[in-house]
Amino acid sequence: MTNGNGINGAEVILFDTYGTVVDWRNSVSGEGRALARTKGIDDIDWASFADAWRAGYAPKMKKVRDGTRPWTANDVLHRERLDEILTEFGIAERFTESEKFDFNRVWHRLRPWPDSVPGLRRLKSRYIIGTLSNGSFRLLANMAKHAGLPWDCIVSSDNFHAFKPDPKIYQGAIDLLGGEAGQVILCAAHNFDLQQARAFGMKTAFVQRPTEYGPTQNTDLLPTDDWDIIAYSIEEVAARLDV
Amino acid sequence: MTNGNGINGAEVILFDTYGTVVDWRNSVSGEGRALARTKGIDDIDWASFADAWRAGYAPKMKKVRDGTRPWTANDVLHRERLDEILTEFGIAERFTESEKFDFNRVWHRLRPWPDSVPGLRRLKSRYIIGTLSNGSFRLLANMAKHAGLPWDCIVSSDNFHAFKPDPKIYQGAIDLLGGEAGQVILCAAHNFDLQQARAFGMKTAFVQRPTEYGPTQNTDLLPTDDWDIIAYSIEEVAARLDV
Repeated sequence: MTNGNGINGAEVILFDTYGTVVDWRNSVSGEGRALARTKGIDDIDWASFADAWRAGYAPKMKKVRDGTRPWTANDVLHRERLDEILTEFGIAERFTESEKFDFNRVWHRLRPWPDSVPGLRRLKSRYIIGTLSNGSFRLLANMAKHAGLPWDCIVSSDNFHAFKPDPKIYQGAIDLLGGEAGQVILCAAHNFDLQQARAFGMKTAFVQRPTEYGPTQNTDLLPTDDWDIIAYSIEEVAARLDV
Repeated sequence: MTNGNGINGAEVILFDTYGTVVDWRNSVSGEGRALARTKGIDDIDWASFADAWRAGYAPKMKKVRDGTRPWTANDVLHRERLDEILTEFGIAERFTESEKFDFNRVWHRLRPWPDSVPGLRRLKSRYIIGTLSNGSFRLLANMAKHAGLPWDCIVSSDNFHAFKPDPKIYQGAIDLLGGEAGQVILCAAHNFDLQQARAFGMKTAFVQRPTEYGPTQNTDLLPTDDWDIIAYSIEEVAARLDV
């Protein structure tokens, strides 16, 4: 894909995680399927379950962003939504509290896309790399340990009690990283995220993840703006930056 | 040295950095000495300069902690103090603004004690490891790159606009790491820091750094309480935790 131009002065690359670095849909559906097998549950479409989990979570974040709900951590929203869909899928009574607690932590164990770890390792050799994620801080630390994501730092919704695209999280990240927006690249698979990053003066790298939402995905298939880097993978982002 | 008892349930180890992980005194005096040579300045005791820099910085943090001064980042306090002591040592006019800016960044380039990197590498294999430091977030990220400190995450005064021993930074760190104080060990060379950590329910590891303040150091030579781990080095902390 194309590369608008080089990114002079960039010293830090922050990454959206869900969808950009890790494949939440196949990770969640895979764990659900495995868990179901151990319990003799065989009539659930676990890809749909993963989609329902994710879909119900955005409106909950929106309420926090709009101020109609007080700050509530990502982990807690995931758990609320899990309880809802276990009921919707008619299997709530098949899980103990301890099993639900553990299944909710699947979001701490999401698996990386194949290019993520090699791409991040390359970028880490020259840049400070970190997250800029709606995930909980501890969730992101656990995810990194589990998936081998070699972050230098974690920047999370927990740090600002705000979810993207709330301005607080972008400006807060810039401030933490030294106050120079132009030194910071946001890498994301979602155009809305890059739009907000650019509005705050950050540089932008779009990574196309056309199956994040499954085979019928119809959002973020293409870049909607002339992002500074447009790539198919995090390894390609590294190549664009000559790392 | 002795080890009170094992630390069951610990999953995270946070480290004080200045003095505990890095040797600020020899790093600062070494850079000062090298810089002076390039400028033909030969009558400065750079160890005393480093001591003066550090000594003047604690009262500045105290004003922020006491609320008599608004939040001011660690980097800014370092620079204020540098300007003061360049004048006190009679060499202010020998440095350009650009040289002062760069010399102030020596705090981003502090060198680790010899046991720090090998000890942290061992601990990282089993624990989430990070900073709990009064240093600026970006300073800590730069320091890690420069010194090869393999942090999983950075927790800084910048995250809470508070300097240790302000309660906000301890409780804030516990919250970020998942809310269970007993899962978090603070490792520090300073008894006051461990006292506050323990007051918040964290576990404690004392690392003796008897030359942090030079050959005549008279503080923190010994543990003042029965910290959970008492060790001579970060490698020994790893050994105590069977890593």
